Amino acid sequence: LPAELTIVGIGLIGASFALAVRDGFERIVALDPDEANGAFAVRRGMVDQRVDVIRPETDAILLACPSHLIADWIVDLADHPATVFDAGSVKQAIISEVHDRLGQVPGNYVPTHPIAGLEQSGPQSASADLFEGRTVILTPLASTDPDRLLHVTGWWQAAGAVVEEMDPARHDQVYARTSHLPHLLAFAYLAGIDPEDLHHTGGGFRDFSRIGGSDPQMWAGIFDRNRAALIAALDTFELDLAEFRRSIEAGDLARCRALIAAARKRREAPE
Amino acid sequence: LPAELTIVGIGLIGASFALAVRDGFERIVALDPDEANGAFAVRRGMVDQRVDVIRPETDAILLACPSHLIADWIVDLADHPATVFDAGSVKQAIISEVHDRLGQVPGNYVPTHPIAGLEQSGPQSASADLFEGRTVILTPLASTDPDRLLHVTGWWQAAGAVVEEMDPARHDQVYARTSHLPHLLAFAYLAGIDPEDLHHTGGGFRDFSRIGGSDPQMWAGIFDRNRAALIAALDTFELDLAEFRRSIEAGDLARCRALIAAARKRREAPE
Repeated sequence: LPAELTIVGIGLIGASFALAVRDGFERIVALDPDEANGAFAVRRGMVDQRVDVIRPETDAILLACPSHLIADWIVDLADHPATVFDAGSVKQAIISEVHDRLGQVPGNYVPTHPIAGLEQSGPQSASADLFEGRTVILTPLASTDPDRLLHVTGWWQAAGAVVEEMDPARHDQVYARTSHLPHLLAFAYLAGIDPEDLHHTGGGFRDFSRIGGSDPQMWAGIFDRNRAALIAALDTFELDLAEFRRSIEAGDLARCRALIAAARKRREAPE
Repeated sequence: LPAELTIVGIGLIGASFALAVRDGFERIVALDPDEANGAFAVRRGMVDQRVDVIRPETDAILLACPSHLIADWIVDLADHPATVFDAGSVKQAIISEVHDRLGQVPGNYVPTHPIAGLEQSGPQSASADLFEGRTVILTPLASTDPDRLLHVTGWWQAAGAVVEEMDPARHDQVYARTSHLPHLLAFAYLAGIDPEDLHHTGGGFRDFSRIGGSDPQMWAGIFDRNRAALIAALDTFELDLAEFRRSIEAGDLARCRALIAAARKRREAPE
């Protein structure tokens, strides 16, 4: 049993992980610049205490902070004896940044991304079963310490997750398309909504725009870190949207119907 | 008790209305070029029989066919004694087309739009409570016969709906933004999805793209009929999206965060 887990960023993901692996560590501590979040997590018994710095004796460190802050932590913790893993929605971009700065990626860092989240944020929304049956992507590198990879795999499994390995660059492209782009589109869509419109919405609007309620700090960080893959996905989307626009402006119903039918099919595959 | 209701287009909406008002009419008949849909509705007792033409003695006619076919029916039925109402997602555009062709809008037509639907289509997905507690927008005109307006209001209420009146042009603008544009964006988004991506999706993708599974025939018709309002909404969206893109490309996290925060707020209003 590892003695101590430090969770950096005790928001939805960090606090849910704490709840899910409560019995797997002797002690769980939280480091978060948001004093209210940290105090809440202590009060609810999610973690044993708040800390202001990473303690030298901690055994495991989960970086559950916004994506744009993760690389800094990995660099700072490169010589720490603990196993470091993260919950960032971006992988290759973080790895590249660390590599640029250190000339290598530290063996004590295991890159992970839990495919679980809510538009709610903060430890108030946390639950012990957030990861139950959900996928966690691991993108280990040649430099990743194999024993630490096994430990991190085991911790996520203990939290109820199904662990899957993936190439980090492919990870960033796939999630740019399936997660980051939809968030961006939902945000841009909502920007054009008139408050009066909200009296006239149905289930379509509600579901489509749900992710538009997500945390600004977190998503600005993801967009920034995964910029290249996101902009590539956005380019594709804009070309596709322009095709739809042309068919509508031309009054070409048959073409528009064919475009819709083809798009709809994309969704019917495995899932 | 009106003797006979004819439903033109016995899909999800038409068949659900038949089920919901079964006891309100002595007889319900269906006119649909899709023989399988008509036969299904008869077999399940949703309607009493199929017809190939509108009978002169029918008392009420619900046009639940695709939006781009509705104006033709209104024009054809201008001198029919029955009360004609529709379930089209577009109102002013249909009214304008009828007006252009007849020099007026017939008094026997009551424009209505039930805010209820599913990405599933066809009578197989119909249910008697589809309209229960849902809003039905009525956009009556000065030329609309007041008695017929009362009847149609009563029928939708009998189906469980809450009836609300609205200006038809405003209706088309509001629903272009809250319904038609999200469908268009979901379709264009799905066009760029790689089938392999579907192994890597979460709840965000599922909800965001749900409406992308909607019926191509129906939606091509809506986009075509509501072209002007939809293109206006699309113009706004493209400007907003371009602002997000600029902030991401510039690496301007603070600006991106502010844009997301403002967008998110749009969703928090009444609903």
